[in-house]
Amino acid sequence: MSMNSFGHLFRVTTWGESHGPALGATVDGCPPGVAIDESMIQHWLDKRKPGQNKFTTQRREPDQVKILSGVFEGQTTGTPVQLMIENTDQRSKDYGDIMEKFRPGHADITYWQKYGIRDYRGGGRSSARETASRVAAGGLAREAIKQIAPNVQITGYMTQIGPHKIDRDRFHWAQIEQNPFWTPDAQAAEDWAAYLDDLRKSGNSVGAVVEVVARGVPAGLGAPVYAKLDTDLAAAMMSINAVKGVEIGEGMAAAELTGEANADEIFMGQNGPQYSSNHAGGILGGISTGQDVVVRFAVKPTSSILTTRKTITKSGEETEIITKGRHDPCVGIRAVPVGEAMMACVILDHLLLHRGQIGENRGHIG
Amino acid sequence: MSMNSFGHLFRVTTWGESHGPALGATVDGCPPGVAIDESMIQHWLDKRKPGQNKFTTQRREPDQVKILSGVFEGQTTGTPVQLMIENTDQRSKDYGDIMEKFRPGHADITYWQKYGIRDYRGGGRSSARETASRVAAGGLAREAIKQIAPNVQITGYMTQIGPHKIDRDRFHWAQIEQNPFWTPDAQAAEDWAAYLDDLRKSGNSVGAVVEVVARGVPAGLGAPVYAKLDTDLAAAMMSINAVKGVEIGEGMAAAELTGEANADEIFMGQNGPQYSSNHAGGILGGISTGQDVVVRFAVKPTSSILTTRKTITKSGEETEIITKGRHDPCVGIRAVPVGEAMMACVILDHLLLHRGQIGENRGHIG
Amino acid sequence: MSMNSFGHLFRVTTWGESHGPALGATVDGCPPGVAIDESMIQHWLDKRKPGQNKFTTQRREPDQVKILSGVFEGQTTGTPVQLMIENTDQRSKDYGDIMEKFRPGHADITYWQKYGIRDYRGGGRSSARETASRVAAGGLAREAIKQIAPNVQITGYMTQIGPHKIDRDRFHWAQIEQNPFWTPDAQAAEDWAAYLDDLRKSGNSVGAVVEVVARGVPAGLGAPVYAKLDTDLAAAMMSINAVKGVEIGEGMAAAELTGEANADEIFMGQNGPQYSSNHAGGILGGISTGQDVVVRFAVKPTSSILTTRKTITKSGEETEIITKGRHDPCVGIRAVPVGEAMMACVILDHLLLHRGQIGENRGHIG
Amino acid sequence: MSMNSFGHLFRVTTWGESHGPALGATVDGCPPGVAIDESMIQHWLDKRKPGQNKFTTQRREPDQVKILSGVFEGQTTGTPVQLMIENTDQRSKDYGDIMEKFRPGHADITYWQKYGIRDYRGGGRSSARETASRVAAGGLAREAIKQIAPNVQITGYMTQIGPHKIDRDRFHWAQIEQNPFWTPDAQAAEDWAAYLDDLRKSGNSVGAVVEVVARGVPAGLGAPVYAKLDTDLAAAMMSINAVKGVEIGEGMAAAELTGEANADEIFMGQNGPQYSSNHAGGILGGISTGQDVVVRFAVKPTSSILTTRKTITKSGEETEIITKGRHDPCVGIRAVPVGEAMMACVILDHLLLHRGQIGENRGHIG
Repeated sequence: MSMNSFGHLFRVTTWGESHGPALGATVDGCPPGVAIDESMIQHWLDKRKPGQNKFTTQRREPDQVKILSGVFEGQTTGTPVQLMIENTDQRSKDYGDIMEKFRPGHADITYWQKYGIRDYRGGGRSSARETASRVAAGGLAREAIKQIAPNVQITGYMTQIGPHKIDRDRFHWAQIEQNPFWTPDAQAAEDWAAYLDDLRKSGNSVGAVVEVVARGVPAGLGAPVYAKLDTDLAAAMMSINAVKGVEIGEGMAAAELTGEANADEIFMGQNGPQYSSNHAGGILGGISTGQDVVVRFAVKPTSSILTTRKTITKSGEETEIITKGRHDPCVGIRAVPVGEAMMACVILDHLLLHRGQIGENRGHIG
Repeated sequence: MSMNSFGHLFRVTTWGESHGPALGATVDGCPPGVAIDESMIQHWLDKRKPGQNKFTTQRREPDQVKILSGVFEGQTTGTPVQLMIENTDQRSKDYGDIMEKFRPGHADITYWQKYGIRDYRGGGRSSARETASRVAAGGLAREAIKQIAPNVQITGYMTQIGPHKIDRDRFHWAQIEQNPFWTPDAQAAEDWAAYLDDLRKSGNSVGAVVEVVARGVPAGLGAPVYAKLDTDLAAAMMSINAVKGVEIGEGMAAAELTGEANADEIFMGQNGPQYSSNHAGGILGGISTGQDVVVRFAVKPTSSILTTRKTITKSGEETEIITKGRHDPCVGIRAVPVGEAMMACVILDHLLLHRGQIGENRGHIG
Repeated sequence: MSMNSFGHLFRVTTWGESHGPALGATVDGCPPGVAIDESMIQHWLDKRKPGQNKFTTQRREPDQVKILSGVFEGQTTGTPVQLMIENTDQRSKDYGDIMEKFRPGHADITYWQKYGIRDYRGGGRSSARETASRVAAGGLAREAIKQIAPNVQITGYMTQIGPHKIDRDRFHWAQIEQNPFWTPDAQAAEDWAAYLDDLRKSGNSVGAVVEVVARGVPAGLGAPVYAKLDTDLAAAMMSINAVKGVEIGEGMAAAELTGEANADEIFMGQNGPQYSSNHAGGILGGISTGQDVVVRFAVKPTSSILTTRKTITKSGEETEIITKGRHDPCVGIRAVPVGEAMMACVILDHLLLHRGQIGENRGHIG
Repeated sequence: MSMNSFGHLFRVTTWGESHGPALGATVDGCPPGVAIDESMIQHWLDKRKPGQNKFTTQRREPDQVKILSGVFEGQTTGTPVQLMIENTDQRSKDYGDIMEKFRPGHADITYWQKYGIRDYRGGGRSSARETASRVAAGGLAREAIKQIAPNVQITGYMTQIGPHKIDRDRFHWAQIEQNPFWTPDAQAAEDWAAYLDDLRKSGNSVGAVVEVVARGVPAGLGAPVYAKLDTDLAAAMMSINAVKGVEIGEGMAAAELTGEANADEIFMGQNGPQYSSNHAGGILGGISTGQDVVVRFAVKPTSSILTTRKTITKSGEETEIITKGRHDPCVGIRAVPVGEAMMACVILDHLLLHRGQIGENRGHIG
């Protein structure tokens, strides 16, 4: 990862600000011959799009993607794919307040200190709007993965909003598409709706936990020792706006386990090794085992809230700030498709990296 | 990060296996004129060295570092620094068991599947011994940091072993150097000793949580959006053997906070902005605020235990395994200096990256 | 350099095909606070623009650049700058011939073999049109250089067309802007006009040599041993379409010199070292000396000519081809601003890289 | 390429100084299962080794390579291979002269200006001794290539010493191994011996041209537009000490050709396309055609000569210098195996890169 690019071979560079003319992703290294059109990418952008229900920001952006290069007659050519999204709903409102004052918990102050200039409109480059570019790139990655590892399925969902966690006994994959929180627990979806509605009305916000699972990932992806699959996933997820923690498999809870409890025992299945459990989250020594790859990340509450908070101005005077505007009471919700996109990009990247160095898996069992 | 290298400008490539002739770190991009000798690096290696007390593996390695290049008359020259550690205590024991069987929870099986060949002796490249190379590189990074940001202080310590957490009210910096767990809570150190002793005798192992703090980091380090300081720290820590979760500031607990509770309010101090709290862990929008940079990571229990576990052989037969040998009941302990080293490498790398693109901070407050 | 990106810190990724909707450059790592607007970049694009005289292709493209990101209120923000050029003159002519047949000396056949799909319209990604993106990025680089090393002046010019070389005794800097060949030799410009006119009428094409000089480059840029200033310049120039050779200073002629003749003797000037000559082309050991940095490259004749050549079809049948269309009799002419742009990008990149690792030059003389 | 590393997937980092304890190459990304031992690498180091005849420096270094990692039971494991060469013949002579004075045409002065410190003994990092590390890495690359593209044959040879060029009509592959100049022209070898003997006795030195050919390279290697095969070859060759020019195929002479003369016509052979000629040097649009890949580079004369030259001291005083010592009258000779090594590294790197993005060539002809 270098500045605004990530990935080794499938390399995505995102660009653009919240309120500039456009933003997008320059995608280098995509294999040729991947069938793709704008609607296939739009599908995922629509999932992330704001204003779809009362639990997300009311800013209305069509987030219409255009493919400007790298695709010819419906297929990728192997050359860079430029995915552009034009910004349309840039309210010409008065930005006076956040122009001069720094929102507590926001990148306003650090961007100013570092660069001495920042596009303060809507957070500029630090806006969560940047994640639209990731979702677009992830949409392309998903199609490319089909070419190489057609059994891979990537699904994200929420497991926690504020203090309220899902009950894993009520986990149903089919439920995920049925509620505005993309949660597998129908009861949680109901509870959260009430909870979040109250929070929204009070102008407050709250954090969340998102889990992303990749099923059908072949064994062998990842490489020692700084291109481990979990290393790249940790970087990918932590790079998403507002993420403060990343877990693989057991995650932080691994600290509480004994070696006896943590060891996923191995058996011999029809198609290779099978495991008694998946504490490892599908990754051992940085390399995929063939089990589900499981990543979890925590999203902090947005700092744009209606409560008055103490802060300072650019000239160093102490003052107070309230952030009016169209904000998300729980940005974690829209982080679900973003987490999926990052998973897709990392998995594709490692499929290519693996093929490059190794070709096909070299070690056989049984 | 690409395969066995990490860092943008201060770029560390580690090499070597647990039981090969040597291992080390090739360090590129170190600024010139850094005063360094082997003893300054040895200091940190000694901290990580096994066999220092009954809570770590009894393998005895002097871990003596040699500087082979890049240093002339006591100073770095700006060319690559080769740090080599020769392996000496490679017991010529029978590796028959782990040669053919895969240890549950260990990289044995994935390395085999991917590469079709692996140095099974002591885990080869997947051994935690690789982290000695990181500690050596981190020792150099610490000295280079002094040249550019002399106020930076990097300290790691344990906050949890198994289910037992420290009490933050008993936190004393001075306590950290006083116990074998590098924990700031003297009472915890006593309790853990008893707990771990029992565990060790039973041949079991347990996980832990390590926290690393960098104090005195100037505001402005980090860059959008994939070279964020927290992104690089997450990758750096997750790349350490056995780490399953990484947190910045509030970490996973950020999910439970409201926006109101999470916002670190800003005041004007003598030397610039001051904050009422540090939920952010010293990083906003991926860029350092000038507060303490706080990273936490969970280390899973080692999979080399004396309990019988079910597994398979290379030829696919189901069997059982017990891992005899000299192992750590809690590898988390020795992960403390490793976490510090990774923090040092990341901070130095971002000091250089920042200087490269920006020179000095451009925005002034007050 | 990785696929479609080049540069270490000032990192340019170009994208787009000759006849797609648009092409451009995603520029990451530009310092903040650089005053820039579209007209400042347009200036250089206009220099490269086709159809300006009878010696270049008659395709008419306005090559109008749009800045889509990274610039706010007339200054760079330090975040990625997206420079987009929309394609407008895409003649809807019949591409049947080059769709099925491979032009000898052209990338048609290798793109097909590698990717199995290619945008054959106008050469697609292999078109020299891609160099417009470089010129745009170079325009930005020039402005950023002014911030860090204001004395740098970058000038390209032709020194040879076909067998006809300039006479160095007639070299006048002021002459360069006075003729369609950007040559410093007025007499050569006249001779070449006649020569090229004949060639153009016969439907043939010819090669050329371009020299690019950077004056005022501070000593100290470049780094051992694979980021040498000359290494990066060689890569930058060789990556330009149709370039087959790159020289630094004496270049290939260095083979004929003795050590005695080749050594640039050193004297002490008012502002540091002075040299008796510049066989080295301003670079010693890969690091700039403070003398003029001199690069030269040869451009082969375009393969799109009116002469019948033997070739094969995609289905492997032997056939013949004539390339009708609007082509350059000497593509070397339009390579002048491209070479300048690459020089600007490399110099800026190394100014940043140097500042990152070193800060300011550490060794003083006198 | 970043500082002291080159390559995309097969990534080589060289380290070490001429008179330090050791130097070597850290090789990351080598495919697993490559049969290798030290003697196979030693074979190529012996070819480069000084002191083999009177035309090379009389410094006597055994240049004995040790494999410290990444190889297990005679095969690469896919993890980093550390290749170390210990320095043994470091004469403890007085370096007073070059410690204080800068040799004209040498990196002495630029290293000092940039870094403010340099290992002046034998040129330190800027010494041609660094190329031993490249040759070691190239030896490994050659064996890895056999696994993926067994028909590849890489051969370097001299085509010019000073003003004396070979006669291409006398070109015999078998002749190359028969003379100390690795030249395919037996007559040239005789002439050069007399010429160089005179030169050596007079304490002077001279430049040379080396050509490296890779036969049997499959079509499809290389990628637009900054990872072109010719771009990477240009960088690889220009990074070799003393190289001032790089040519692909026709090279600089392409400037003199017309499009009609330059176009390599295409025919259909038994195993795919055949070409009437190879002006292109086996590369079209940056991608290999399947023809011989032909690279040529010019090496300047060494600046260490017995003639008195004017120079300055570190304190800025004008003075004179004669470089006594054991130097090469024509460093170009020992550049032959170095050029071969760089070719091997680049070809292997592109084989892996191609396999990563593409798998196998996608487009079929006939």
